[in-house]
Amino acid sequence: MPRYRLLVEYDGTSYAGWQRQENGHTVQAAIEQAIFNFCGDTISLGAAGRTDSGVHACAQVAHADLTKNWSSSKIREALNAHLVIAGEAVSILNVELVGDGFDARFSATGRHYLYRIINRRPPAPLEAHRAWWVKKPLDAEAMHDAAQRLIGTHDFTTFRATQCQSKSPVKTLDRLDVTRNGEIIEIRASARSFLHNQIRSFAGTLNEVGCGRWDADDVSAALEARDRRACGPVAPPYGLYLIGVDYPIVTGSGREMPRAP
Amino acid sequence: MPRYRLLVEYDGTSYAGWQRQENGHTVQAAIEQAIFNFCGDTISLGAAGRTDSGVHACAQVAHADLTKNWSSSKIREALNAHLVIAGEAVSILNVELVGDGFDARFSATGRHYLYRIINRRPPAPLEAHRAWWVKKPLDAEAMHDAAQRLIGTHDFTTFRATQCQSKSPVKTLDRLDVTRNGEIIEIRASARSFLHNQIRSFAGTLNEVGCGRWDADDVSAALEARDRRACGPVAPPYGLYLIGVDYPIVTGSGREMPRAP
Repeated sequence: MPRYRLLVEYDGTSYAGWQRQENGHTVQAAIEQAIFNFCGDTISLGAAGRTDSGVHACAQVAHADLTKNWSSSKIREALNAHLVIAGEAVSILNVELVGDGFDARFSATGRHYLYRIINRRPPAPLEAHRAWWVKKPLDAEAMHDAAQRLIGTHDFTTFRATQCQSKSPVKTLDRLDVTRNGEIIEIRASARSFLHNQIRSFAGTLNEVGCGRWDADDVSAALEARDRRACGPVAPPYGLYLIGVDYPIVTGSGREMPRAP
Repeated sequence: MPRYRLLVEYDGTSYAGWQRQENGHTVQAAIEQAIFNFCGDTISLGAAGRTDSGVHACAQVAHADLTKNWSSSKIREALNAHLVIAGEAVSILNVELVGDGFDARFSATGRHYLYRIINRRPPAPLEAHRAWWVKKPLDAEAMHDAAQRLIGTHDFTTFRATQCQSKSPVKTLDRLDVTRNGEIIEIRASARSFLHNQIRSFAGTLNEVGCGRWDADDVSAALEARDRRACGPVAPPYGLYLIGVDYPIVTGSGREMPRAP
């Protein structure tokens, strides 16, 4: 069976997250239904990031095994047509034939997320469901400096949801940058993989720094505590976007090539 | 009675436009209700632009006469609190005390609008209600060149809704720029005032140029026809934003100062 890699954008507002579940409509279910409507295949999609309800994606990656060989553009056009007809807020940006060895989740070597804050006193209707509205003036430089305390390999128990299913709380954080662009503060996080709620926990904690309640040493202390109760309030889901996933370069035949050292 | 100038942002998606009407909830009614809830005054707001249903504003300007003298920040905070409680997608960005001579509509010397197109093949869920999704590749440079045919003082009957209430179809268009930034095409229009549906008529017509069905001479011919039927299809409302209004500089006492020549 040919395996296809899908690049997916969605507005997570009206979904109960990525992952198929009994109660609530999910992005995974929306795409699986579109695939069924297109070719009759009943499949289960794998994905790079199981985003929570309200979380968006500009570049989620999923893989699908289809019974028949279709051209990539045929699949993309057909799935988008079915998604639009069904009124889904989901778009297939790209489709590519990949080898059997490709797994959207387990082959991923890097994940990139963006967390957006709109920082101003008046409400922000044009950013509703797209950014976290924070009224208190935030010091983005202080947030960035404090964020650097979290870079590297650590036990991130403090920044992990209690229901997180990851075997180990030890992860390596490659990047956590905070920048201001006018009223918008962007937090960009990169790692091979993240714990459940890790970035929203970072964003909520850095918000404490930005408004002056915490300083960088408090962030270090929270990390070292390895205690969920040491975390700042978790930031809301609607500011979060999955913006990229890295994979090793693969050859045309779909076999993995070793990365350049 | 003190007169206040309000700077207003709104997501026009769920409103029947700016102007109060019998059927359908409007932005004007939402703000008038917030004013009533704040201070008990029943007023009628004047505004710079009577935007249609679905059209957004980053910088609508309105004026309100209140019975009592309040501080500007008190009014802004109170109105925003009432708007948030009521679940309105409307925000008061700024409040300023102005002279009796100020009229949001009649004092305005310039109005600036932005029309956003997202130009790509797949659907764009994160731009839903925020931009017009156009699948066919558009040539933004050709659109810009053709747009320059519309600059200046003309009879814009072709680009005017049949229900337009303006006395004259003659207007002076100061700017109509088309630029591409990745998948987003921005059309920026400036004039002292616009006819009803004028910018959406421009956008729809320039779209014809962008996809190659029309050329610049066709745009000139449409303008010269002075006939509504010569217009391209009118672009949808949700790509349009009122982004700025100009007024003459006023002194602290609210009296108009002549502009520097």
